[in-house]
Amino acid sequence: MNKPHRATQEDVTLVGVGASVRREPDDLTWQFASWLTTEDEFSDSVLSSRVRLARNIRGYRFPHRASHEELSAVIKRVKNVCPKCPSLENARYIEIQKLSDLECKYLVERRQASPQLIESDSPSLLILSESEDLSIMVNEEDHLRIQCVEAGLGIDSAWEKITRLDDELEESLDVCYSREFGYLTSCPTNIGTGLRVSVFVHLPGLSLRGKIDSVLERLPDSEIAIRGFCGEGSESIGNIYQISNQPTLGRTESNVISRIIQTAKQLIELERDARVTLLEKSRVTVEDAVFRALGLLKHARVISSFEAMDLLSTLRLGSELGLVKEISRLAVSQLIVLVQPGHLQRIYRKKLGAEDRDMLRAEFIRQNLVV
Amino acid sequence: MNKPHRATQEDVTLVGVGASVRREPDDLTWQFASWLTTEDEFSDSVLSSRVRLARNIRGYRFPHRASHEELSAVIKRVKNVCPKCPSLENARYIEIQKLSDLECKYLVERRQASPQLIESDSPSLLILSESEDLSIMVNEEDHLRIQCVEAGLGIDSAWEKITRLDDELEESLDVCYSREFGYLTSCPTNIGTGLRVSVFVHLPGLSLRGKIDSVLERLPDSEIAIRGFCGEGSESIGNIYQISNQPTLGRTESNVISRIIQTAKQLIELERDARVTLLEKSRVTVEDAVFRALGLLKHARVISSFEAMDLLSTLRLGSELGLVKEISRLAVSQLIVLVQPGHLQRIYRKKLGAEDRDMLRAEFIRQNLVV
Repeated sequence: MNKPHRATQEDVTLVGVGASVRREPDDLTWQFASWLTTEDEFSDSVLSSRVRLARNIRGYRFPHRASHEELSAVIKRVKNVCPKCPSLENARYIEIQKLSDLECKYLVERRQASPQLIESDSPSLLILSESEDLSIMVNEEDHLRIQCVEAGLGIDSAWEKITRLDDELEESLDVCYSREFGYLTSCPTNIGTGLRVSVFVHLPGLSLRGKIDSVLERLPDSEIAIRGFCGEGSESIGNIYQISNQPTLGRTESNVISRIIQTAKQLIELERDARVTLLEKSRVTVEDAVFRALGLLKHARVISSFEAMDLLSTLRLGSELGLVKEISRLAVSQLIVLVQPGHLQRIYRKKLGAEDRDMLRAEFIRQNLVV
Repeated sequence: MNKPHRATQEDVTLVGVGASVRREPDDLTWQFASWLTTEDEFSDSVLSSRVRLARNIRGYRFPHRASHEELSAVIKRVKNVCPKCPSLENARYIEIQKLSDLECKYLVERRQASPQLIESDSPSLLILSESEDLSIMVNEEDHLRIQCVEAGLGIDSAWEKITRLDDELEESLDVCYSREFGYLTSCPTNIGTGLRVSVFVHLPGLSLRGKIDSVLERLPDSEIAIRGFCGEGSESIGNIYQISNQPTLGRTESNVISRIIQTAKQLIELERDARVTLLEKSRVTVEDAVFRALGLLKHARVISSFEAMDLLSTLRLGSELGLVKEISRLAVSQLIVLVQPGHLQRIYRKKLGAEDRDMLRAEFIRQNLVV
C-alpha cells in the first residue's frame, strides 16, 4: 500500500490534523491556504466565503473571440503587470497547459481553477497568491477572473483584499468599463459589477431536523441562489450548500454583498436554532449519528468520497456541539477538503484508480483521526 | 441512565467480556452456562449443540389430555425423583407460573424454556442443572423434555450426559415405551427415539461470499433441516443457522446423531473454505466489513437487537480470522446471547421499553468492547 509522503523539517503541518506534507515552492505547491487554516465567529456554520470579479483588458478581443496570439499577448501583459502588485508578492504563475490531469483536478477541487479553464486548449494562466487567498484565472470566460477566498463569513475581508488587488491591477491595466453599463464582460449576466459572491454553509442541523428543504424554499431573497456543494443543479453532499448572488444588472457591489451576508446570517441563525433544538429534543439521536460517523471513519477500510463527505459532515457537527472532543472542528473541515479524489492523489503523489483511492482515503482518514 | 449491576466478590465474571453480574443462587440465577463459557475445535463455525429427549411417565395421561391434578401429580413425582439423580446435583427447580414476564422471556431466549411452556396455564416446571448444561421441562408437550446443551459441536458429550440423566431418571420412573414403536410421545413425529439434535452454526463466510443460499439448497440429507436463528420459518439473524434432524420414525439414535454431525462437518468445511477464499480474494472487503462492524459497535448510542446480532456476527468472523485482536471470539459469542432483549433487561434488572433497550444495549456493548 502506498504511504503518503512523510513530514520533513521543511514541511508545513496541517493545523489540527496529524498529516503533514512537504511544501515545494517551485511546484504546484501543496500548501495550506489561509482559508483552510483559520476560522471566524461564523465557522460553526460557514466553511468559507468567496468573492470574484470579472475584468477584461481594453485592446484585446474577449477570450472566446480572441486568436491564440491575442490570448498569448494577454498573458504576457498580465505577467508583466502582476509582479508589480503588492497583493501578489511571491505569487505563483501556473501555466494550465503544462499541468498534469492530476494537478488540474486538484486545482478544480480547490475552486482555484474552473473546469472551463482546465479544459481549454487556448493559452491560459492561473496566478496564485502566496497564501492562496487571492487568485486570478487569465483567459477563462473573461481576460481576468480575480478571486478571493476567506475562512468563515469573511466577505468583507475578501472584498477589501480583492478591491485592493483590482485597484493595483488597474493602475497598469486599462480595463473595459462603460459609464452606462459598468464593467463589460463576456457574458451579459456579469456586466456591471462583474461581481459574484459565494458562501459555503454547513447545515447538518437543519438537515437532521428535516427542515432543510422548507428553509431553502422559503428563502426570501429572489436575487440569491442556494445550491448543493458541487454547484449548479447538484445535490448537496455533506450538507454543504453554496449561497451566491444571481447575476443581476444594476446592483451596486455593496448591495450585493449586504444581501448575501443577510441571507447567510439568516441561515446561520436557523442552523444554530436547529442545533439547539436537536440537543434539547433528540440528543440521543444526534449523539448516535455523530458517534456512528466517528466509528465508521475511524475503522472503515474502504470509503468513497461521497460517504466520507457525509460522515465528516456529521462529525463536524459533533465536534461543534462538543460531543466529540478528540478532533477539532477545523481539522474536520480540512479533511472535508483533503479527501476529495484530486487532493488524495496529490497527498499520495500518485494517479490512483477508484478502488485504490477508496482504500487510501480510508487509511488517510484513520491516520488523521487518531488523537 | 440505568447502570448495570456492578461486580462484587461473589460475582461470576463473564469470560473474556468486561461485564460481570452477580450470581443469586436462590433466584433465577444470572449465571454463565457451561455452553456459553467454553469452546471446542469447531467453535470457529459452531456456537452450540443441543440434544433433546421426549419422555412420558406411565400412569398419567399425556399433558394435553391430563387434568390439572394429574399434571400437579407429575410435577410432584418428578420433584421427588430428580434430587436422587447425580446429574442434577444442586439443580434449581423453577415454577414457571411464578415467574415474571421478564424471567420467562429470558429463559426462552436461552432456549431453556419453550414459548409453549411459558404460555401454558397448567402446572409446569423447569429444572436446571447447576452449570445449565442439563435441563428438564416438565409438562410441556410431553411429561419430560430433557435437554443438554454443549459448546461447539459437543453432540457426543451432550448425548453422553443426557443418556446418563435419562438412565438415572428411568431407575425411578417408569416411562412409556413400546417394544414395537420405541418411546411414546404426544406428537407422533417424536415417537421412537424422542430425540431431537440441533447445531447452531455461524456461517458469515458463506454469507459474505454470497454462497449461503446455494449451499443450504443443495444440502444432501433429506432428513436434516436447516433454519434461521429463530427456528422454523424464520430468516437467519447474524448468519446463525440451526441444523436439526427432521422428525422421522424408525431411525436409531446413533443414526440421527451421525447424520447431524456429518452435515454439520460438511457445512463447517464449506464455511472454512469460504473464509480462506475471502482472505485470499477479498481481504480488503472482509476487513472493511469487520472494522465497520467494530466501529459501529464501539460508537453507536442506539442499537436494535437485529443490528447488534448482525454486527456481532461480522465481528466474530473478524476475531476468528485474527483481524480484530482486541476481543476474543468467545467474548463476541457471549455478547450475541447477552444483547437479546430479555437478557438485557435481566442485566439491567429492569423492564425496559424498546427505546431504552436500544440505548442500554449500545451502552452495554460499548462497555464490553473496551480493551
